[in-house]
Amino acid sequence: MAVLLGDIVQALGGTLLGPPSQAVQRLAPLASAGAGDLSFISHARYAGQMDATRAGALIAPPALQVAAQARGACIVTDDPYLYFARLTQWWKQRHAPVQPAHVDPLASVHPTARIGLDVTVGPFAVIGPQAEVGDGARIGAHSVLGAGARVGAGSVLHARVSLGDACSVGERCILHPGVVIGADGFGFAPHEGEWIKIEQLGAVRIGNDVEIGANTCIDRGAMDDTLIEDGVKLDNLIQIGHNVRVGAHTAMAGCVGVAGSADIGAHCTIGGGAVVLGHLRLADGVHVSAASVVTRSLLKPGHYTGMFPIDDNAAWEKNAASLKQLNRLRERIKALEQAIENARTPSSKP
Amino acid sequence: MAVLLGDIVQALGGTLLGPPSQAVQRLAPLASAGAGDLSFISHARYAGQMDATRAGALIAPPALQVAAQARGACIVTDDPYLYFARLTQWWKQRHAPVQPAHVDPLASVHPTARIGLDVTVGPFAVIGPQAEVGDGARIGAHSVLGAGARVGAGSVLHARVSLGDACSVGERCILHPGVVIGADGFGFAPHEGEWIKIEQLGAVRIGNDVEIGANTCIDRGAMDDTLIEDGVKLDNLIQIGHNVRVGAHTAMAGCVGVAGSADIGAHCTIGGGAVVLGHLRLADGVHVSAASVVTRSLLKPGHYTGMFPIDDNAAWEKNAASLKQLNRLRERIKALEQAIENARTPSSKP
Amino acid sequence: MAVLLGDIVQALGGTLLGPPSQAVQRLAPLASAGAGDLSFISHARYAGQMDATRAGALIAPPALQVAAQARGACIVTDDPYLYFARLTQWWKQRHAPVQPAHVDPLASVHPTARIGLDVTVGPFAVIGPQAEVGDGARIGAHSVLGAGARVGAGSVLHARVSLGDACSVGERCILHPGVVIGADGFGFAPHEGEWIKIEQLGAVRIGNDVEIGANTCIDRGAMDDTLIEDGVKLDNLIQIGHNVRVGAHTAMAGCVGVAGSADIGAHCTIGGGAVVLGHLRLADGVHVSAASVVTRSLLKPGHYTGMFPIDDNAAWEKNAASLKQLNRLRERIKALEQAIENARTPSSKP
Repeated sequence: MAVLLGDIVQALGGTLLGPPSQAVQRLAPLASAGAGDLSFISHARYAGQMDATRAGALIAPPALQVAAQARGACIVTDDPYLYFARLTQWWKQRHAPVQPAHVDPLASVHPTARIGLDVTVGPFAVIGPQAEVGDGARIGAHSVLGAGARVGAGSVLHARVSLGDACSVGERCILHPGVVIGADGFGFAPHEGEWIKIEQLGAVRIGNDVEIGANTCIDRGAMDDTLIEDGVKLDNLIQIGHNVRVGAHTAMAGCVGVAGSADIGAHCTIGGGAVVLGHLRLADGVHVSAASVVTRSLLKPGHYTGMFPIDDNAAWEKNAASLKQLNRLRERIKALEQAIENARTPSSKP
Repeated sequence: MAVLLGDIVQALGGTLLGPPSQAVQRLAPLASAGAGDLSFISHARYAGQMDATRAGALIAPPALQVAAQARGACIVTDDPYLYFARLTQWWKQRHAPVQPAHVDPLASVHPTARIGLDVTVGPFAVIGPQAEVGDGARIGAHSVLGAGARVGAGSVLHARVSLGDACSVGERCILHPGVVIGADGFGFAPHEGEWIKIEQLGAVRIGNDVEIGANTCIDRGAMDDTLIEDGVKLDNLIQIGHNVRVGAHTAMAGCVGVAGSADIGAHCTIGGGAVVLGHLRLADGVHVSAASVVTRSLLKPGHYTGMFPIDDNAAWEKNAASLKQLNRLRERIKALEQAIENARTPSSKP
Repeated sequence: MAVLLGDIVQALGGTLLGPPSQAVQRLAPLASAGAGDLSFISHARYAGQMDATRAGALIAPPALQVAAQARGACIVTDDPYLYFARLTQWWKQRHAPVQPAHVDPLASVHPTARIGLDVTVGPFAVIGPQAEVGDGARIGAHSVLGAGARVGAGSVLHARVSLGDACSVGERCILHPGVVIGADGFGFAPHEGEWIKIEQLGAVRIGNDVEIGANTCIDRGAMDDTLIEDGVKLDNLIQIGHNVRVGAHTAMAGCVGVAGSADIGAHCTIGGGAVVLGHLRLADGVHVSAASVVTRSLLKPGHYTGMFPIDDNAAWEKNAASLKQLNRLRERIKALEQAIENARTPSSKP
């Protein structure tokens, strides 16, 4: 189902240099694109990749216009990566249009649930009592909305998402398969060697335009609610503890763990596998590298890292062994400095 | 649905200083509590937080009785955190009473399964052949009990929990959505560059009063069973390999990974994101910090840590680069010490 | 359901030293085996464990034949661990034979789906339009095959596996509960402080004889497909980002995270909790230790490690504090070396 370059610029803008009737079979990365494909080059510093690609057409920034045009058709735009993002959305809509809304007869919808207009509910989904589903929302197969749970207009819950009792998801959100919203936070009081459960009486509130990856978990709050603000993007297999706040437009890569009551600002990025301990505060604009462990509040915006550099195993073994003596090495350095100092100033000694 | 302070102390004990008829709208943390709310202060060292809170009533330890009473109503008890835990249980029971038991007609229950009294089975749950569900247990929507699986009396499996063939869960356990008990352990024999599957013939046995967080996985044993003892608390997204033993009342925070055949004692705590390698033994009372990697057995109770301290990225880069030369630095220190020693004792040299 | 030693060697080969009529109740590890059990000893270096076991019969290598025979029945074979793996397969087939194929009437199978011969589909499974299921495949309860998804002959999807639209799984694969194949990759273009979604137009292609552990996620590609080659073994709770390639017969332990576009070779092993950053290349035969973070391409086969060694907390605190000054320590060593050098050669100074 090819589209024409002319159709693309008509829909998304940009300056087309080349024939509007040129067909595009596929959007493709530079390296694997063929003569029928459209690719993009996000920045002038990647100009070298232009020589190697066989893409039939390119989306390119103004700085590369001449070079791109010399090799074939191109669409010139100030921000090719953004243009590409919008193109993928347009492309998907065109190639895989959303099916007409319908509530599958195999779903279990409680009679007191409020279902909006143009809502799709998949087979074997369960919509609990007093739950609300906004207009145009889609609830995937096997998804479960607890009592009083709310899904905003236009949001998509893919297959088998759990949205716990009284938890809410805003508008235009996307929740991927296996997401669990509103399981109990991990709270226990120690008592005579055992753990006494603290029932988690809060809920989870998720803003608008939030995307949550497969098998990610966001626990309900102990008393207050856990909060995920507008525009947050969470990758797969992330754990968000109870009463965490994730500020607007913050993004976290896969396998991140955030412990209870951490307060993470807006416009942060957290790299894959990083851990944020509980009750800490991260300012707006904090960027944490992958696999780093945040053990203290980070109150200034900036880029923070803590990970052991990888090495060949034999070298690592030697350095790791030395590391366990690092504090002693420091003392030995101090002693050496003192010895040198003493040697230099013998006359000043009593 | 407010409750009265008098009702609370009648149910849970403690000394009420203030009007029994005072209403409580909500349990709330000190920071967000309002005039209608009840909050707690767990220890005298947090006395400073008492000044700032607007809570209408406080649960406080005896050491803070005078100060608490001076500001309003309070319940005095020796262990306010424990009192609070019990209060959340009482509160939940009162505000969200368990629904009458019923087996949903949309569930698939095998005719040979044995279902106890007062059991609830949710829509689309699957109870396999010879499976057993104890009195008062609740099996959530989309949960699957394999052939011969057993759930003890009073246990709760939330939505879409998998309990594999022949695996068992004790009494009063809580399993959150997405938990997978009894998937195959990761066992293969290498053969000519390929991996030959070792069928996992053991099962998983879980004791009483165990709680298991969302999307956590516990693999079945290779030959013997994987064991989770009484009172263990596991947070979300934890991986427990085959033939692991987790001793009684041990707690693990989110994203922990425990490799096969690790033997973890009782009353341990494992911080979030920590990794325990296989075939190791942790004594009773071992506490592992978050994100630490246990690479050797820890046979003495105590607190163990291994994580790279986080720093601003520029500082980290310098220190990480130096770290790769640490063993050489150690040798250079040794050489310096030798040089100083030689300089000090020139006459003793041949 | 005991079997006889004679039946085992008839089926699997090896040299039986002992009575073919001796019954085996159970396959068991050396430590817990009893008089009715069959155990194995994989290598001559474990000869010491032979003295302690009470196993009624042993699988042993030729080097231990005399010692094994002296204590009782044994099966001698060149590779006892491989023999044991095949024995578990034979054992399982004998004790838990696969049930006759049938499509459960409670499944939802789209009329345009193509279902092969001898296919089993569990209750509440959903097979989408144009999906294909090969001969002898088994689709577990609550599993969902999207539009155009394909499952090869003989593959097993356990309960609640998600296979996204247009994604494919080869032959003889095993996917454990909670696996999510083909959720959207994590791709966004930044724009004025917000994230613009890049629709993920690729799919996931999985080869033959692949095993994927519980709750593991493999994202669909942005434009090209994510690729998992033949014979790959993935443990539980692993995250594979979009456009990753995992080469044939590579194995990853639990909780590994692989970021987008990483290209991992064949016959690699990745330890539990390790992280591989995006756009890196790992050569064939690279072995990464548990919890290590791969931050650069590893173009030579070998064993690589990077993790902070665990220590008692007090020692760790001192060493971690020193670590933050490591670069300064290095400079102090350099200064000391210079001072010593200067002291040695005073006459050469101006």
